[in-house]
Amino acid sequence: MSLIVQKYGGTSVGSTERILNVARRVLATQEEGHEVIAVVSAMAGVTDNLLGLARGVSSTPTKREMDVLLATGEQTTIALLAMAINGLGGKAISLTGAQAGIATDGDHTRARITTITPDEVHRLLDDGHIVIVAGFQGQTPDGRITTLGRGGTDLSAIAMASAVGADRCQILTDVDGVYTCDPRVVPNARKIDEISYDEMLEMASSGSKVMQSRSVEFAKKFGVIFDVCSSLNTNPGTVVMEEKSHMEAVVIRGVSLERNQAKVTVGNVPDQPGFAARVFRAIAEAGIIIDMIVQNTSEEGVTDISFTLNKDELARAKEVLVQSVGAFSSDSRVTSEEGVAKVSAVGIGMRSHSGVAADMFSALAAAGINIKMISTSEIKTAVIVDEKDVEAAARTVHDGFGLGDKDFLA
Amino acid sequence: MSLIVQKYGGTSVGSTERILNVARRVLATQEEGHEVIAVVSAMAGVTDNLLGLARGVSSTPTKREMDVLLATGEQTTIALLAMAINGLGGKAISLTGAQAGIATDGDHTRARITTITPDEVHRLLDDGHIVIVAGFQGQTPDGRITTLGRGGTDLSAIAMASAVGADRCQILTDVDGVYTCDPRVVPNARKIDEISYDEMLEMASSGSKVMQSRSVEFAKKFGVIFDVCSSLNTNPGTVVMEEKSHMEAVVIRGVSLERNQAKVTVGNVPDQPGFAARVFRAIAEAGIIIDMIVQNTSEEGVTDISFTLNKDELARAKEVLVQSVGAFSSDSRVTSEEGVAKVSAVGIGMRSHSGVAADMFSALAAAGINIKMISTSEIKTAVIVDEKDVEAAARTVHDGFGLGDKDFLA
Repeated sequence: MSLIVQKYGGTSVGSTERILNVARRVLATQEEGHEVIAVVSAMAGVTDNLLGLARGVSSTPTKREMDVLLATGEQTTIALLAMAINGLGGKAISLTGAQAGIATDGDHTRARITTITPDEVHRLLDDGHIVIVAGFQGQTPDGRITTLGRGGTDLSAIAMASAVGADRCQILTDVDGVYTCDPRVVPNARKIDEISYDEMLEMASSGSKVMQSRSVEFAKKFGVIFDVCSSLNTNPGTVVMEEKSHMEAVVIRGVSLERNQAKVTVGNVPDQPGFAARVFRAIAEAGIIIDMIVQNTSEEGVTDISFTLNKDELARAKEVLVQSVGAFSSDSRVTSEEGVAKVSAVGIGMRSHSGVAADMFSALAAAGINIKMISTSEIKTAVIVDEKDVEAAARTVHDGFGLGDKDFLA
Repeated sequence: MSLIVQKYGGTSVGSTERILNVARRVLATQEEGHEVIAVVSAMAGVTDNLLGLARGVSSTPTKREMDVLLATGEQTTIALLAMAINGLGGKAISLTGAQAGIATDGDHTRARITTITPDEVHRLLDDGHIVIVAGFQGQTPDGRITTLGRGGTDLSAIAMASAVGADRCQILTDVDGVYTCDPRVVPNARKIDEISYDEMLEMASSGSKVMQSRSVEFAKKFGVIFDVCSSLNTNPGTVVMEEKSHMEAVVIRGVSLERNQAKVTVGNVPDQPGFAARVFRAIAEAGIIIDMIVQNTSEEGVTDISFTLNKDELARAKEVLVQSVGAFSSDSRVTSEEGVAKVSAVGIGMRSHSGVAADMFSALAAAGINIKMISTSEIKTAVIVDEKDVEAAARTVHDGFGLGDKDFLA
C-alpha cells in the first residue's frame, strides 16, 4: 500500500457538483489500494468574495485578521469534501492547516512553512481514514492562523508529501500536465513526461504558470517528486523530479512565452561602479518587479542598461527612473518600448550542447523575426521580440528544436 | 475599569455596514473606560448558505464535518469586526472559539461547554486589546471543532463572562429588552427593568423567544447577571439576575403567548400505573417535542390525558399514538384539536400571592374567552385558548394584572 497526496485547486472544487467529482476520484484512488491525503483550496470565487467583505469594513485590513478571514475558504472546502466522501460511503475526516500540524512563521498573508508535525494525519490514516487537509494555511507556534500567499495550496501539498514521506504527490489541475509550449499557440505542442525541477522553475518564471516557483523550489529542496496531472481524467501527467542523466539527451524541454512585456533602456550612462545598483535600488524601493536585465559592454566610458517588466508597471518605473537617473547623471536618458514579449527555450541539455543559442537565433532570423534583447541562464535562452511576432517566434523555436516531433520525446 | 462582555447576533452583524456600526459601538464602550470582549455570531444568512452547500454534497452530512463547516461563519465575522475596529483606529484581535479557550464535549452540532481557559483573552485584554471571540463554537480536548447548537452565541457570551469574571454581560439584540408582553399584540406593553432567571426561563419556554432557555439556565447556574438590550440604541435594557426580595412585590412579571399549538387528548384510558409513561415514551421515541401535559382525576377507573404541541408535529404524533395506544387499550381513543394557542402569566410573586389563577380565569371569563386547558408551575399559570382569542386573552391578562400601568413597575 502506498501513500498518495493529491492537491485539488479552486476550480476543481468550485461547486458542490465538482466537489462530488473530486470525492469520487479520491475514493477511486483509495480503492486502488492507496492511502490518500487530499489537500484542497478554497472554492473558486470564495476568496474574492472574502476580499470584497474585507474591503467593505476597512481600506487597510489588518493582515492578521485577513488570514483569519481567508482561512475560512479552505475550511469550508475540507468540510464539504469530507461530507461528500462520507456520503458516498467512504470514511474521511477533515483537518485545518493547524490541525494537520502545519506550522509557519508569523508573516501574515505570506507565511512560510517552518515544520509539519503530521502525527494526527498518520493516526487518521492508520485508522483507515482519507484525510482532507486545508491547503494555503497554517498556524504559528503561538496559535495564530496564517496563510501562505499565492500558490499556497501547492506548497501545502508538497510540504505535506515531504513530511509524511508520501510515495507520490499529485498536483491535480485543469491541464493534462506541462507542455512543450502553450497548445493554443503551438498546435503540435506535446505533453512533457518528465521534467527537472530547474527546468520547471525556468518554465514557471518564463510565463508557463502551471505552478508558482516557490512550490517547485520547495520540492527541489526536499526532493519531493510530484506529478502535474488533470483532475478530469486519469492520463499520466508530467513528473517533476531531480534531473537524471538521460534527461540531458533532450536539449530543449520546452518553450514558454510571456506577453505584455515592456523594455526600458537607460542610455548613455557613465560606466562607473555603483550606477546600476542605484538604478535598480530605486526600482526595487518602488516595489516594481522586473525580469531580464542586460548591460552591453562599455564604449568610451558610457554604456546602456536595459531591462524588461510587465507593461502595467512601465509608467511607474519611468517616473522613478527619470527622478533617480536625473540625480546621478545629466547626460543619461530613459527610453522605453511597449508591445514586446518574451520567448524562452528551456532545457538542462543546453548545458552540455553548445550552439543552442546560435541555432535559436538562426531559426528566428530565417523566419524574419527581429530579436530586441537576449538573456541567457545556464538552462534557458530568452529573447525579447515584438508582441506581434511572439506566436510565430514560439512556433519557430518549438519546431526548430523538434519539440513537436512525436518520436522525439517518446 | 470594568470588564464588559457584549454579544452581537447575526442580524447585528448582517452586512459590512452593520459590522462597522458594531465596531463603533464596541469602540465607544472602550472609550467609556471599559475593557471589552465582543462575542459574535455568523452574519445573518451565512449559516443557511453553508447548510445549502452541505445538502449539495450529501443528504446526511457528517456532524463532525458540519461543525467544521458552520464554524467558518463566526470565524468570518470575527475577522471582519476586528478589521473594522482596527480600521477605525482601535486595537482589536480576533479569536476563534478554540483560540479563546472554549472547551466542549464531543457532541457535534450541539456540544456543551465544559470549561473555558481564558488565558489568551486575559493576555490580550491586559495588552490593551479589544478581544473579538467567535460565538457558537468551541473545541474538544483532542482538537476537534464543535458548535453549540441553537442559541449558542448567547451561551458563549454568558459562559465567557463567567470565566473571565466580567462586571457586565450585555446581550445586544434587535429589541430593547424583555417586554411585559409582545408589543405588537399588547400596545401598552412595557419594557421590564429587572427579571429573575426563573421568570426569564418561563417567559422563554412560553413563547417569548428573546433567548434560548439553555443560556438562561447557564447564567442562573453560574450566577452571571446579564442585560438584554438593543444594539441600535443605548437605552437601558432588561437586567436578568437572581431574584431579589423586592421582586416578589410584582405578582406577574409578564405575559407570553405562543401560537400554532395543537391539543391532543387520549381519552377513556385505563387509570393504571405505566399507561401515561408508555404513551409519552412512544411520543419521545418519535422525537416529537410536547409542551403542557394535563391529566384529570380519574372517574370509575378511566381517565383522560391531554397534551399540547406545535401543530406542525400533530400529524406525526397522531400516527404514533394510534399505533401505541391501540396496542395498550382497545377502548381508548385519540382526539385532537388545532387552532389553539397558549397564554402564560409569569411571575415569582405568584408564589406568595394566592388567588392569581382565580384572578386570571375570572378576567378571561369576563372577557368571554373560553379556557380549554390549564397548567401551572410555581411561577407560571398557562391556559390554552382558541387561536382567535389569543390576542384578546393576552391583553385581558396583561391589563388584569396592571402590567401596562406606567407607575406599576416604576
